[in-house]
Amino acid sequence: MRYELGCSLSYNILSETVFIFNVEVAHLQSLEILSEALTLAPDLPRRTYVTPDLQNRYLGVVVQPGPFSLEYNATVDLTPFRADPATIGETPVNRLPLDILPFLLPSRYVSSDRLTPFAVAEFGALPKGHQRVNAICSWIHTHITYQAGTSDAETTADESLLRRAGVCRDFAHLGIAFCRALGIPARFVSAYAHGLVPSDFHAVFEAYLDGRWWLFDATRQANLDGLVRIGVGRDAAEIAFSTPFGNMQPTAMQVRIARSDGVSDAVIRTVDAISTEIPAPHAGAA
Amino acid sequence: MRYELGCSLSYNILSETVFIFNVEVAHLQSLEILSEALTLAPDLPRRTYVTPDLQNRYLGVVVQPGPFSLEYNATVDLTPFRADPATIGETPVNRLPLDILPFLLPSRYVSSDRLTPFAVAEFGALPKGHQRVNAICSWIHTHITYQAGTSDAETTADESLLRRAGVCRDFAHLGIAFCRALGIPARFVSAYAHGLVPSDFHAVFEAYLDGRWWLFDATRQANLDGLVRIGVGRDAAEIAFSTPFGNMQPTAMQVRIARSDGVSDAVIRTVDAISTEIPAPHAGAA
Amino acid sequence: MRYELGCSLSYNILSETVFIFNVEVAHLQSLEILSEALTLAPDLPRRTYVTPDLQNRYLGVVVQPGPFSLEYNATVDLTPFRADPATIGETPVNRLPLDILPFLLPSRYVSSDRLTPFAVAEFGALPKGHQRVNAICSWIHTHITYQAGTSDAETTADESLLRRAGVCRDFAHLGIAFCRALGIPARFVSAYAHGLVPSDFHAVFEAYLDGRWWLFDATRQANLDGLVRIGVGRDAAEIAFSTPFGNMQPTAMQVRIARSDGVSDAVIRTVDAISTEIPAPHAGAA
Amino acid sequence: MRYELGCSLSYNILSETVFIFNVEVAHLQSLEILSEALTLAPDLPRRTYVTPDLQNRYLGVVVQPGPFSLEYNATVDLTPFRADPATIGETPVNRLPLDILPFLLPSRYVSSDRLTPFAVAEFGALPKGHQRVNAICSWIHTHITYQAGTSDAETTADESLLRRAGVCRDFAHLGIAFCRALGIPARFVSAYAHGLVPSDFHAVFEAYLDGRWWLFDATRQANLDGLVRIGVGRDAAEIAFSTPFGNMQPTAMQVRIARSDGVSDAVIRTVDAISTEIPAPHAGAA
Repeated sequence: MRYELGCSLSYNILSETVFIFNVEVAHLQSLEILSEALTLAPDLPRRTYVTPDLQNRYLGVVVQPGPFSLEYNATVDLTPFRADPATIGETPVNRLPLDILPFLLPSRYVSSDRLTPFAVAEFGALPKGHQRVNAICSWIHTHITYQAGTSDAETTADESLLRRAGVCRDFAHLGIAFCRALGIPARFVSAYAHGLVPSDFHAVFEAYLDGRWWLFDATRQANLDGLVRIGVGRDAAEIAFSTPFGNMQPTAMQVRIARSDGVSDAVIRTVDAISTEIPAPHAGAA
Repeated sequence: MRYELGCSLSYNILSETVFIFNVEVAHLQSLEILSEALTLAPDLPRRTYVTPDLQNRYLGVVVQPGPFSLEYNATVDLTPFRADPATIGETPVNRLPLDILPFLLPSRYVSSDRLTPFAVAEFGALPKGHQRVNAICSWIHTHITYQAGTSDAETTADESLLRRAGVCRDFAHLGIAFCRALGIPARFVSAYAHGLVPSDFHAVFEAYLDGRWWLFDATRQANLDGLVRIGVGRDAAEIAFSTPFGNMQPTAMQVRIARSDGVSDAVIRTVDAISTEIPAPHAGAA
Repeated sequence: MRYELGCSLSYNILSETVFIFNVEVAHLQSLEILSEALTLAPDLPRRTYVTPDLQNRYLGVVVQPGPFSLEYNATVDLTPFRADPATIGETPVNRLPLDILPFLLPSRYVSSDRLTPFAVAEFGALPKGHQRVNAICSWIHTHITYQAGTSDAETTADESLLRRAGVCRDFAHLGIAFCRALGIPARFVSAYAHGLVPSDFHAVFEAYLDGRWWLFDATRQANLDGLVRIGVGRDAAEIAFSTPFGNMQPTAMQVRIARSDGVSDAVIRTVDAISTEIPAPHAGAA
Repeated sequence: MRYELGCSLSYNILSETVFIFNVEVAHLQSLEILSEALTLAPDLPRRTYVTPDLQNRYLGVVVQPGPFSLEYNATVDLTPFRADPATIGETPVNRLPLDILPFLLPSRYVSSDRLTPFAVAEFGALPKGHQRVNAICSWIHTHITYQAGTSDAETTADESLLRRAGVCRDFAHLGIAFCRALGIPARFVSAYAHGLVPSDFHAVFEAYLDGRWWLFDATRQANLDGLVRIGVGRDAAEIAFSTPFGNMQPTAMQVRIARSDGVSDAVIRTVDAISTEIPAPHAGAA
């Protein structure tokens, strides 16, 4: 599927500000970048960095006071790997690649250690595999209310569980926490999300099952086969779309994604299991 | 300085257990490994993994029920980089390499976001540079009591600050949290520590100053120029010396390090600033 | 029903210690004290205090170093008020007596404010009255594991909910928290509990419904009509059986209660709603 | 000293709301009420309740949708008890009246148990008595920034310590927590405060020293001899000036107090220790 996507971010800079942006689509086999352009106004020197393990693309800019904006546009072909969910089991810990293991550990927002009793009680006896992670997503979708303003930059997964409310990042953190508590590696994913209304940067998560990372969205707001990955990390702390160091005010923000292959833009939710890894699964350290 | 060091770990395995060990000394320019041997009893297949960014060495073993032990011995030449602390300033955020920036973020045990007001109030006005991080260590050493049993696997830096007590990992987490709260990248380091009594795996931290990572020990229990690094990470979650998945009991543990170069084993505390990076500083993504 | 009950508490006093004991049965209309004796060894001057509102009986003793013990025995006739649970509704806030209102507020261990979203989501739509509080107890009994050692003196109701485990005081705190979150006044009760195995001081709770305080036991371990009240308060902080100020070690503790009216001591669980207030309901400030 | 004081509170009631107000001055020997009037618009039936132990005056009103307001005015003669701070020591626990002991326990916002190590480290070695509590207030005044919007209805004393900021209720909670952690009974006080700019309901605290409750204000914003007490309790939860149950919006609020005895209204800070108990100290249960 071909998508045109991008974002426009505007700021009013009050004092010299260092920005780290993470808005460019990731370098993945399943994601061919046909064209891509990122402009800054004013135009400024850029520093770039791609994490060696996760392939996130970071852009660093130092901005002086005044108006500042970033515009990013890309055309991509997304060919996610699909499978029948019923065929996807869990990977025993003794067969997990060693470089996957950090995604079993608790992190700043993913208090999987505190949530272990809860996860074991609710999900411990369910049939294992893709269907168990899907059951976790259904539980979250049923029990947590999607509501802006119910969380902030300090909110952890256990707090969201008590508050019974959150936004997409909280839904993802809670899903990741339940997975890790059950011994399933899981990680945070930011993406351009086809079908998300209103359009915005979206947060979902991936669980590592049967040797491959699979996508899940506990908010049930986006199409799993229409998620164009930006970044992946332990939790939201690592892949904010914008991390500013300095005194500035965001003034406008727009995020967009649309089909551009002549096919109807109608949203049809897939029933397949979806992975961004094709064709070979995870080729990390065994 | 030449050291002979190592550890002996014994377990009683009750059900199949997957161990991830991180006990081998790191691959560093300042650390020449003259000889090294790691034996398992019973001898079992090993998986190994070296993190591409941080050079931590992980060893994975699947162990069946019964007694199990690991023995590691190495002889190393440690040549840390030394400098006059007074000459080491702080690196402005706009000149920090992008791959350093994750070490400014809060992590599971390093609640730097919650500790920002405290850090700014206590240390915000101090002269910047190596001396400021040293002042942080002195504050911790004065205000926090080193006491076994005062913390557990869930203890965060803000909790240690309230409890006014902790062990080496808590001292390191608090030091890291104060640094990150002040905009100084900092990370957790596990090490064989010459001069530590009684001998044990030690936890210290590194702060990124003037383009290089420098060692600090808020417990003031080890020699900065006698620390042989094992691992480095965001916090203790990432570099436990042993992460077991399964039902087992530790039965014995011994950690050792001694001078082996004919020089007196007496401990003389250096007054230099010490870095394990030689001779060139950090060569990451700029 | 007639009960013989009591307790024996022994301590080794290491430095002068002030004890506040709360072990004597409360003064209630439904509880006739036929005989009662409390002895101290060594015999020491006593201070006593009965709280004007709640009728808790406190005993203060100053003890010098050495062995110390307290023995309490009483014979009581308990005649609890009984009703059909189906007939007991909730009291609207506008008809709650003003002196009841503090039992709607959060307290040290009863974090009802943090648990409000959870309580509303789980229990908000249930039919109101005794049956709703009973449903809360059933939920707790089903979802929380009774397990010694899973909580400590700092454990709050929201933490118990996450840990999915606790002891009787935690079960009571969670029940109270859910009630207060729903606008139902609730309070903590300590008692001698007929039918509790092994015998110990027990913690249950009371909810204020239809103008009267009704007993509930989320542990389902004691008979509601066999609970002989010692104290009542906002939460466990107020009615510990022993609050020592000084350096001492508990050396032995025994708690006992048995039928003494010739009737079989067999435990038959009542299906009635049980209140210790007879015959008139709460006669506080309207 | 004679004061005219009062408050005007206005609300827009959206659904039937039960209000519990605590705005009338307390009944104290040191506080003669010369005249007093409380009006409601519309005029509505009132329920009143005075707590038997603490003498707080609560007013309950049920209000239907529409505008609603309360106006309270009183003229009082305040004659606080004064003493030389240097003469006031601490009361050993073994001489504390039993009804004072609850004010040593942690409560919802006063996490004195969590703050004990901090309190002992900072204040444990200071000379005991009024001067130690005064030193606590000075420490808070120096280290905590008075700043609106830095706390909310869930903020506890330990959180305020980490945030290094709060409003008057947070200053009081922190002072109370440090006192209780040191074995000094302490309680929360709401008051009309002469000298407070801008005028508002004020929160201060009392510590029990040498057989009497003494006033302290860690914000240093009010005159200790110009505090006209409204309520007293374990913490802010118990004596909110307005506790509404229902859907309503506050629309206006005014609090006032002025000298009315012909003496200049100029504020002169007393250097005496101030207690509202005259002439005999605390006459509770011994």
